[in-house]
Amino acid sequence: MKFNKELENIKSYEAGKPIELVVREYGIEPQNIIKLASNENPNGCSQKVQDGVAKIVSNMSLYPDDSMLKLKNALSKQYNIDESELIIGAGSDQIIEFIVHATCSAESKILMNSITFAMYQIYADHVGASTIRTTSVNHDLEQFYNLYAEHKPSIIFICTPNNPTGDAIKKDELYRFLKRVDSETLVVVDGAYMEYAIGKDSKYEVAPSQLIKEFENVIYLGTFSKAYGLGGMRIGYGISNAKIIKELYKIRPPFNITTLSLEAAALALEDIEFVEMSIKDCFKEMIRYEEFAKEMNLEFIESYTNFITLLLNSHNSSKIAQTLLSMGIIIRDLSSYNLNAIRITIGKSEQNSRLFNALRGILSK
Amino acid sequence: MKFNKELENIKSYEAGKPIELVVREYGIEPQNIIKLASNENPNGCSQKVQDGVAKIVSNMSLYPDDSMLKLKNALSKQYNIDESELIIGAGSDQIIEFIVHATCSAESKILMNSITFAMYQIYADHVGASTIRTTSVNHDLEQFYNLYAEHKPSIIFICTPNNPTGDAIKKDELYRFLKRVDSETLVVVDGAYMEYAIGKDSKYEVAPSQLIKEFENVIYLGTFSKAYGLGGMRIGYGISNAKIIKELYKIRPPFNITTLSLEAAALALEDIEFVEMSIKDCFKEMIRYEEFAKEMNLEFIESYTNFITLLLNSHNSSKIAQTLLSMGIIIRDLSSYNLNAIRITIGKSEQNSRLFNALRGILSK
Repeated sequence: MKFNKELENIKSYEAGKPIELVVREYGIEPQNIIKLASNENPNGCSQKVQDGVAKIVSNMSLYPDDSMLKLKNALSKQYNIDESELIIGAGSDQIIEFIVHATCSAESKILMNSITFAMYQIYADHVGASTIRTTSVNHDLEQFYNLYAEHKPSIIFICTPNNPTGDAIKKDELYRFLKRVDSETLVVVDGAYMEYAIGKDSKYEVAPSQLIKEFENVIYLGTFSKAYGLGGMRIGYGISNAKIIKELYKIRPPFNITTLSLEAAALALEDIEFVEMSIKDCFKEMIRYEEFAKEMNLEFIESYTNFITLLLNSHNSSKIAQTLLSMGIIIRDLSSYNLNAIRITIGKSEQNSRLFNALRGILSK
Repeated sequence: MKFNKELENIKSYEAGKPIELVVREYGIEPQNIIKLASNENPNGCSQKVQDGVAKIVSNMSLYPDDSMLKLKNALSKQYNIDESELIIGAGSDQIIEFIVHATCSAESKILMNSITFAMYQIYADHVGASTIRTTSVNHDLEQFYNLYAEHKPSIIFICTPNNPTGDAIKKDELYRFLKRVDSETLVVVDGAYMEYAIGKDSKYEVAPSQLIKEFENVIYLGTFSKAYGLGGMRIGYGISNAKIIKELYKIRPPFNITTLSLEAAALALEDIEFVEMSIKDCFKEMIRYEEFAKEMNLEFIESYTNFITLLLNSHNSSKIAQTLLSMGIIIRDLSSYNLNAIRITIGKSEQNSRLFNALRGILSK
């Protein structure tokens, strides 16, 4: 039996360690473990969403409404777009998968930032496409343009705010760049953390409706995993012109969103207060992280997200992550991104305090 | 922007019409609609599963345990296999997708029954592979062997019991066939409805542990969507030797099963009584369908599943399905499978009675 040669080069995604794993590996009680590794919402998810989902658990036996009427309707209102401009995926990950599989092959090139969301590379590897990367840590759109002009890639991934670094691109700057890219290249604007960027500074807001009106070769990605607190339910979406959406739909597997996830996402859009509260809490705690970094003489990347990336010049990120793990604190080591840095999800106030104390102890040794 | 040429030929999966659609199109009240179209479990799902899931709705914000420890553990015990021999997918659909994407390209051939589960063709189309089909309605393994010997396909799909026809293959017969297939061809034994076949006649039981011990080139597929009553939660699995599973794992997207789905499936395995009751109810009602068919002088295919396929010689299946739909009864027209037949999910007693009455009226006109 032969497997396709593309499989040889696929590396698996390195997920944030789940709490269960730390329980098993270190014998720490679950209630004593804090996970600040996967940028989950520390406020959990909206109580209204929880109540609504609990109410329909008897529907688990019914296949999902594959037209996704209720959720599509809610999302199209939220973003002032037509339903034909919308595709819903099992996380925005799945939209990335659709995009790469629909437009790329082993002959294709894909352009992305030096350090960015790992799934872009993984899906490129699925089809054997080559990837081109900038060299700067933050998105440098001049570098992007030069590489674009040189390689004419099939896809450009722009992640704003960027994961795992936290920096973002001003809308005006992004638009100037997009105007220089011709329509043969599909530009993916991944706004998984956009709600946080908007909460911090409206100059960073990229509104999908305007974006797709101005650029026919752009697709915007959003997710319910972050500000909406539904990371466990796997719901993301792509917004683009109807022609592109129609093509992506061709490779969407039927029933790609569970019955309970469809309900959860639709209800989540109704609870604006929960999202606003989550963003407000996040940036309130973010100040403490910035102050902590200054106190410890650590560089950090200014963050437009619900996490912060601390650069560790004289310390080793893997060692620090490992020591924290043994203390029951899960954060993300960025050494696999070739960055001697750690990414920490902004947690609840008491979780952050515990992290500060632990890190203070480790760094002063 | 260019889309891959394979997209031109992809047809979308025709899902059973959801109740919401009939409400919208015919203005019938939801409580007056019965859906016997998607082979959902008419008993819903286990109360224990419902209670267990409702209890953890606050976990919706947490990414799923991507090691799937709890569910893998439960499934490996259930089937007496090693966890390395197991991969879990968003429905067994997703395992089919992994298999085709991992082993096939535009040069590949895939062999399947003339009439069988539509997703085999759809995923073949994704990669542009050609498909070869037998001519008989039921699986004819002699035909399968001859086509195999002629074409040496990369994959053979055997669906037992078969969807949408309901017939099944005796274990001995299947084993005799598998012995004649060399290890260069991967044989997929899709047992989505296997629990029903076992409940009807143990000679049709294909046990995955024995199957994969005897044949290194076979993968068994199972699902929680049917007997376990979790169609809305998207959980299926593949069981094969560890070498094959490892390759398929390379293209599994991270977090492909939701947090609530993982819990639902693990709990569902604990409630054997619910599954046994569902199967018993199904075949009790099946007798009524067989008697009804005889009464109406309709041919039917003997079913080893939770549905029955009625062959309509002198009536048009599309017209009958349409008329039933307008009366609030959703069944599956098989005309798109080139079969003048309707597939009806065995429902609750009162639902079946309503179907009999409606169909009696239509057929006697």
